[in-house]
This record gives sequence, structure tokens and C-alpha cells, in this order.
Amino acid sequence: MDFVSLFLLDLVKQLQSPTLGFLIGGMVIAALGSQLVIPEAICQIIVFMLLTKIGLTGGIAIRTSNLTEMILPAAFAVIVGILVVFIARYTLARLPKVKTVDAIATGGLFGAVSGSTMAAALTLLEEQNISYEAWAGAFYPFMDIPALVTAIVVANIYLNKKRRATVQSSLEGTLSRQPVAAGDFSDPQDYPSTRQEYRGRQQAPGGNRVQIWPIIQESLQGPALSAMLLGLALGIFTRPESVYESFYNPLFRGLLSVLMVVMGMEAWSRVGELRKVAQWYVVYSVVAPFVHGLIAFGLGMIAHYTMGFSMGGVVVLAVIASSSSDISGPPTLRAGIPSANPSAYIGASTAVGTPVAIGLCIPFFIGLAQAIGG
Amino acid sequence: MDFVSLFLLDLVKQLQSPTLGFLIGGMVIAALGSQLVIPEAICQIIVFMLLTKIGLTGGIAIRTSNLTEMILPAAFAVIVGILVVFIARYTLARLPKVKTVDAIATGGLFGAVSGSTMAAALTLLEEQNISYEAWAGAFYPFMDIPALVTAIVVANIYLNKKRRATVQSSLEGTLSRQPVAAGDFSDPQDYPSTRQEYRGRQQAPGGNRVQIWPIIQESLQGPALSAMLLGLALGIFTRPESVYESFYNPLFRGLLSVLMVVMGMEAWSRVGELRKVAQWYVVYSVVAPFVHGLIAFGLGMIAHYTMGFSMGGVVVLAVIASSSSDISGPPTLRAGIPSANPSAYIGASTAVGTPVAIGLCIPFFIGLAQAIGG
Amino acid sequence: MDFVSLFLLDLVKQLQSPTLGFLIGGMVIAALGSQLVIPEAICQIIVFMLLTKIGLTGGIAIRTSNLTEMILPAAFAVIVGILVVFIARYTLARLPKVKTVDAIATGGLFGAVSGSTMAAALTLLEEQNISYEAWAGAFYPFMDIPALVTAIVVANIYLNKKRRATVQSSLEGTLSRQPVAAGDFSDPQDYPSTRQEYRGRQQAPGGNRVQIWPIIQESLQGPALSAMLLGLALGIFTRPESVYESFYNPLFRGLLSVLMVVMGMEAWSRVGELRKVAQWYVVYSVVAPFVHGLIAFGLGMIAHYTMGFSMGGVVVLAVIASSSSDISGPPTLRAGIPSANPSAYIGASTAVGTPVAIGLCIPFFIGLAQAIGG
Repeated sequence: MDFVSLFLLDLVKQLQSPTLGFLIGGMVIAALGSQLVIPEAICQIIVFMLLTKIGLTGGIAIRTSNLTEMILPAAFAVIVGILVVFIARYTLARLPKVKTVDAIATGGLFGAVSGSTMAAALTLLEEQNISYEAWAGAFYPFMDIPALVTAIVVANIYLNKKRRATVQSSLEGTLSRQPVAAGDFSDPQDYPSTRQEYRGRQQAPGGNRVQIWPIIQESLQGPALSAMLLGLALGIFTRPESVYESFYNPLFRGLLSVLMVVMGMEAWSRVGELRKVAQWYVVYSVVAPFVHGLIAFGLGMIAHYTMGFSMGGVVVLAVIASSSSDISGPPTLRAGIPSANPSAYIGASTAVGTPVAIGLCIPFFIGLAQAIGG
Repeated sequence: MDFVSLFLLDLVKQLQSPTLGFLIGGMVIAALGSQLVIPEAICQIIVFMLLTKIGLTGGIAIRTSNLTEMILPAAFAVIVGILVVFIARYTLARLPKVKTVDAIATGGLFGAVSGSTMAAALTLLEEQNISYEAWAGAFYPFMDIPALVTAIVVANIYLNKKRRATVQSSLEGTLSRQPVAAGDFSDPQDYPSTRQEYRGRQQAPGGNRVQIWPIIQESLQGPALSAMLLGLALGIFTRPESVYESFYNPLFRGLLSVLMVVMGMEAWSRVGELRKVAQWYVVYSVVAPFVHGLIAFGLGMIAHYTMGFSMGGVVVLAVIASSSSDISGPPTLRAGIPSANPSAYIGASTAVGTPVAIGLCIPFFIGLAQAIGG
Repeated sequence: MDFVSLFLLDLVKQLQSPTLGFLIGGMVIAALGSQLVIPEAICQIIVFMLLTKIGLTGGIAIRTSNLTEMILPAAFAVIVGILVVFIARYTLARLPKVKTVDAIATGGLFGAVSGSTMAAALTLLEEQNISYEAWAGAFYPFMDIPALVTAIVVANIYLNKKRRATVQSSLEGTLSRQPVAAGDFSDPQDYPSTRQEYRGRQQAPGGNRVQIWPIIQESLQGPALSAMLLGLALGIFTRPESVYESFYNPLFRGLLSVLMVVMGMEAWSRVGELRKVAQWYVVYSVVAPFVHGLIAFGLGMIAHYTMGFSMGGVVVLAVIASSSSDISGPPTLRAGIPSANPSAYIGASTAVGTPVAIGLCIPFFIGLAQAIGG
């Protein structure tokens, strides 16, 4: 009873947080038909600055930290990233009207990480005066990349198995050559060609193996992750404290608030896209962020009790598990699993998964940490 | 004599203010043929941030204010907004070569409010250490919306009367169906269609009434006003102090200075447009900001003596009355009065009205307040 | 020995500076194939803000300075700007496979100044706690304009001489009418027309003189220089301290760091352009920044010993001599010397000259100043 009341009290208090307030405000003005436009160029530079800042924070922290402390939480991040894909493979993929490749791709996107969601979580932790390890933001790639790699590998193994079964009767593996469902993407033609390249390599020895390195490379080259890694490297190898204190750190919350308005408006405008997708995706997109977050929260608690990992760090781990990728994930998946339907995994993630992660999971896990730790 | 010398001294001092300096600087470099370009995306985000900040300031102030203090000034704002349209109807519209609908639309635009002008006034008041009620910026919609609604209603009543007089001989009210004079707008076709919708609704019972609610809705949905109302709501219902202090408030003056350069350059480049318009518009655009401001200043003085409304607040009221809408007003008017000529009211407002309001009226009313109050 | 070790120690320390770190970081992520994009609109506003800030700093300093102190260094800036062109005329132009007009144009671009490079130098001086005269940034136009004017005048004298030699046999000076080599510029047609205008004027009396005033005017109207002069004028004639302290000054380093990432990525992507150009341009582009900087450093030392010009100021003078124009110079040169090949001078400048100036010359001259002065 005391636990529940503490938790609910905290939830209400957090909804007054400016970060969530701007998100909800964005949704409300979109619902009221506002003509407000935040230009795309502004969103790009905001994402660059947020992730460079998270990288710098992590890099500066790593420079002065005991690296052994980071091993266990980082390993848990990798584990959760891989696990999320298998959960989708054996739950979502089994549901009626859901194609297996679409489900695997969706799992990959939900296992990958959203920089904006993580930025919101770090800000809320600070607003609630909950301390966390400064290097916690650096877990991003440890969960993001394994999830995407696992999804692409699992999908290709599945497709190869299926092809072998079919290949008895037909010579060509037509399945993986079928054109990508276009969705609202401008130039779908260049992705299959990349896929051809993968297949070209993989068919060399056994015709059955997926090249993992190109997937990792592609993830690292995405705009979100390369901004974050740039910040991380600069934080470790240079002395960026002056520019960090005068620019990246003070502007962080404000830029995030602008991005929250954009994300709120976008989430509202994409609600309609969900109609095109089997309704099971909606159920998955609401439930999965909590399930993934709880798994990561549980693993984080192990690190908390064994290694002294902070409760704030546990929340960060849970939130990046809850979040689903909005920037770098989709193009990587389209290249790696060209036969999956983008409107399934992107619709599920941006219209439901991200608002649920930011608006519900962040307050939930902060409340949970305070109820347990307080 | 003492009053005049005080006033002139203050005027000179204010022209050294950075806010006006950047405006004049923008005009000068445009006149000298500078190739400087501030991208449109930057102007959009600056307007968003300025008006969100004004909204936040107002919202935070309202949360802790005595609401009864606001009633009288807010009522005066509504009165001035309506009055300005009738002034244009019975002065500008009576002048030679001026079409009545064009005059009413111009009155609507001059009654509506410019967020940038208001932002400049608030900054100058702070630079001069003149205190004002923090909720004064929240008067924006109280003057803006009544002015636009009144203009559209008055114009339609006028057009209906005229149509009835004509309808004896011709069956169709061709006047209101004549195509909009295109001006330099990209897609004029979508506005008349909105207008058709209005007419569809209005013709239901008596064929003579204008639907007021769609006009109000359209005003509220404009980018400037929806940013301001978003800030206002977040200021009232959430606790945005952290993001306000670290982002919106410190960046306000600087962002305004960039916008002033843009507005100075734009005002200079639009001077040529005035040739297309009857010269009476130029006379109106110079005189009207002072007349409107003086009316509001007088009403503000009543609130000053009866309710203790601050002199700074009186200046804010006068300046928003002097200002004419540059962002949200024009599209609303084009939809509501499609038969009015946009190059008349937009040219008058942006090429003359806005520079006069910022460069002359703000220093004038601040000087007046200091000469009276000091 | 002590001098060399001091110098090397300082060089290593400077490579950890955030400013150079972000430049190198940008190169590295570009080399690794990052998909990161900083939108063009953001780069434009950053350049505007950096140069307005440098102008404001200079203007505020000039307002309170002894102007006679500035005369000698400013004269040296003019001398270096002119000298650089003649150096290119009598070294680069004499090398095999190098066209004389191309060499003169390249000299003009290397004599002109890069605002970003100067901004980086000022920031590094502050990071190293080396004081410099706040008006040192105002030397920009004193070197930039003479270099461009000299290059255009020298090129036209050369072309006229050559034409006279040819005119015996052919009546028309076809050389200067040959179409501009297009390079990667969108609309080359409008430049020759400006050039026609110059020729129209110059052919009036002797057919041999170049109009200097239009070249100066065109330089002053460029976006970089007009932002800087706007700041300078506002710093001298208004009181911009409030907006300077709250906006332009604190954001300076951070905005510069973003621009450094962009410049690093761009330098990397332009390396390929160098193949199109005679290899002697690469040699020139590496050596010239050091030679120009050393000449300016030497002249600066004269001012240091005679007038008490600070060592930091000497470094600023050397760095603006090392830098080559990236924004305003190229269009001015294309208009003034339409027969020169833009891919020669632009390729040499942006792919080699600018990275060498920022990444090597700035640390070199700071180290030199510290080794001499410390």
C-alpha cells in the first residue's frame, strides 16, 4: 500500500515535469490542429547536439572512471538487446496475421535505442535529483547494435530455411527478391541493392551465412550513433570541458524540450498509420516496452546489489531497453531485412512504442526505483 | 519643456539599445546590398522560441497571480482590437482609390498583434529597468483574435449588403467568388476553398451570418499563437522553471537580435511593394500605429490609476496595439476575406507598419511612460 | 633545444583542445563513412553568429581603445594581403603546368581571410590563456579586401598585356571572353555578366584600367564580411553588451565546435577534388599558409617591440595571414577573374589550405609565440 501510494504520488509529480509536459503539449496542439512547424534542419541539429552531449558526458566520465564497474551493466545491455529480438520471434511472430520477418524486424527496432528517449530519461532523473553514473548514457551502442545485428541474422536464417524448403520445386529464391513494400519512403530501390551485396558475400561458401560486420558498420555510421561516438571519443581523448560547460550541457534540456514538442506532434500524426497494420502490433507496442524495461530493470538490480550500480543507472538501463529506435534503426533494418514491411515496424515503433516509452515507461521506472530505493 | 526634453533624451538613449540597433543595422546592410541570408528554418525556430518563452513567462506568472488584476487590462485589449477595425472602416475606407474590403482587411491586420514587436518591447522595457506585469505578454490573443474576427465579420456584412443591392439584377453573388488577387503567394487556390466552406455554412439559415468560431479556431492554430498558447499552458500546468531559466529566458534577447536583423532587411526589401498600393496606405501605416497605441495607452492609464496596473504594463498594451500581425494574421485574413487584395494589407503592414511600430512607437511609448511616471 | 621541446610540448597539448579535437573528429567520422549531416541552414546561422560576435567584440573594444595603437598592425595586415598575391604571382605561376591567371586567383584566395579559422584561433588563444587585443579580430577586412583587389587587378593587367600582344593579329580580346570553367557551381552564367560590366567601365578611357571600387563593394557585401561589419558597427555605435554577454559570447565556442565538425567532414570529402588539379597546387597549399603566416608573424613582432602589440595579437595576425577564404572570396574572384579555373583555387584552398591553417598553423604560431614570449 505504501509502495503503491509512493509510486502513484511520484507518477503525478513527474507528469508536471517540463520534459513530459512538452511531449504531451505537442500531442495536444497536434490534436487541436496547430499549424506549428519545427523545421527538419532544426530537428537534425538538436539530435546531433543531444547525442554529442550524451557522448561527451560519457567520455569525460569514462576518462576518470574505473572501467571494471562498467563491464557488468554493459554486458546486461548486450544481453537485453539480443533477448528482445527473440521475444518478438516467439511471441509477436506467433500471433495471427503477423508475418514472421515483420515480427523479427519489429523486435530489432524495439531492441534498438532511441537517443531522444534516453535524453528524456537522463533529464527526468536530474529533475528528480536521482543520481546515476555519468557513463550510463554510453550503454546506447551496447544495446542498439546487438539488437539490430541479431534481428538481421535471425531473419536471414529464417528466410534461408524457408528458401531451402521451397528450393526443391523452384530454382530461384524468389522470396528474398520480392520488392520491398514501399511505405512512405522516397527511394526504396537502393536498399535491395545493398541487400544483394550482402547476399553476394554470404553465398560464397555455404550460401547460408550472414555477414555481421557490414550491419555493425552501418549502425555505427548512422547520424545518431556517429554523433554519440564522436562525443564519446572527444570526451575520452580531448579536454572538451570548456565547450561542454558553456554549450552542450546548458542547452541540453531546452533543446530536448523543443524535440519533445516535435515528437509529440509526430506521434499524434502517425496514429492513423496504425490502421494499416494488424492490431496485434498495437498490443505488442504497448506491452513490449514494459516487458523489455522490466527485464533490464531486473538485471540492473543484480548489478546494483553486486557491484553498487546506482538506482539511477538501473533506470537508465531499463529506459534504453523500453525505447525503440527512431533514427538509425529503420534504414539499417530496411537494408538488412528488405522483405520485411517497413510500415509494420516503423508504425508500431513511432506511433505507439516511443510515446509509451517516454510518457509511461520513464515515469514508471523512476517511480519503481524510488519506491524500492527510497 | 521639461517633459519634452526628458522624452527626447530618452528617445536618443533607446536608439542605442541593441534591439533597435540590430533592426536599424539590418535595414542599413540591406540598403547597402548585403548578400547576408538568415535561413527561413532559423527564423521559424526563433519565432517559436520567442513566443513559447513569452507564453511560459505569462503562464508562470498567472499561476501565482491574482487573476482579478488581469480582467480590466484584458478587457481593454479586446476593446482596442475591435476598435482598430472600425477606425480603418471609417477612415482608410473613405479615402480616394481605397477599396472598402481592402481597408477592412488592413484594419484587421493592424489590430492583430506581432509577436516580434511585442518581444522587442518587453526587451526594451527590461533594458530600461521599467518593471511590468509578467503576465502582460499574455494579452496577445485578447487583442489579436477579436481584431481578426471583427475584420472578417465587418467585411462579410459589407459584402452581403452590397450583394443584396446587386442581387436584384443578377442571381449569383459574383463579387465574393471573384478569384483572389494572387500577390506573391505560392498557392492561393486553397484559401478560396476554405472560404467556400465558410459560405456553405453561413448560407444555411439566413444567408447573412458569418461563422465566428472557425475564424477563432484558425487564429489559434497559427504557428505564432499556438507556440504562445503552448508556453502559456505549460507555464500554468507544469513546472517548467528549470528549462525556462536554462534555455528560453537566457536565449531570448539574442534570438530576438537575430530576428531584428531579418526584419530590418525584409522591411527594406519590401519598400518597393508599396508603389503598387494607393499612397493613402502609406499615410495610414505611419499614423495608425501611433493612434492605436495612444488609445491603448489611454485605456491602460485608466487601469493604472484604478487598479494599480504598472506603467510598464501600459506600455506593453500600447505596443501590442501599435503592432500589426506579420505571421498568423495574413493567412487568416486571406481565408476570411478572399476578395481583399493581399498586397494592400500585407505591403502596408510589413513594409511600413512593423518598422514604425518597432522603431518609433516602442521608443515613443516608453519615453511617454517615463516622462509621465518619472 | 629548450625552445624546441617547449614548442613540441605545447603542440601536443593543443591537439587536445576541443576546437581542434572537433575538427579532427569531423575528419575521422567522414573517413569512417558517417552519415551525419549538419544542415546548411545551421552552418549559415553559425557563420553569421561567429562573425557578428567577432565584430561586436572588435567594435566594443574600438569604442574604448586608443586608435593609434591599431594603425601599425592594420597597415601590416594590408601589406601582407597584397604581398601574398605577388608571392603566388612569382612562385606558383612559374611552376610547370600552372596557368598564370589560376595562380593569381589562388594567391588572392590565400591572401583573403577565413572567419572560421580566425574564430578557431581566438578560441585557442583563450583556451591557452594567452591575451590578445580584443580589436584584433577587426583586422579581417584589412587583409581580406586588399588581397582580393590586388589579385583581380594583377590578373587583369596580365590579361590586358597578353591581349595587346595578341591583338595585332585578332581584333577581339577573346581570351577574357572565354566561358568560365564550370566546376561544381550552379549558375556560372551570372558571373561573366558582372565581368562584362567591369570591362564596360574599364574600357572607357585607356582600355587598360580595372575598376577597384566594385571589387571592394562586392567583398563588403558578402555574407561573412557583412555580418562582421554589422557587429563592428553595432559594437561601436550602440550598447550591445547585454545581448553580447547573454548570447553571442557564451555560445561562441560551442557553435564553433559544431562548425569544426562540418569543416573536418568537408575537408575530407574534398580531398578527391585535388586530383583534378596540378600537383603543384598541393605543394603550394601546404607551404603557403606557413610562409604567409611567418611574414605576418615577423611584421607583428615589429609592432610588438615598437608599439607593445601583444604576442596574442601577433598570433592573430599570423593566423589570418595563414588562412584562406572559404565563403566570400570564391564568388568575388569568379566575378573578377572569370577566366581563372575555380576548381584550381577552391580545391587548393578548402581541401588543403584550410585544414593546414587550422590544424597545423594555429598550433604552430601559438607554440612559436609561447616559446618566444614565455
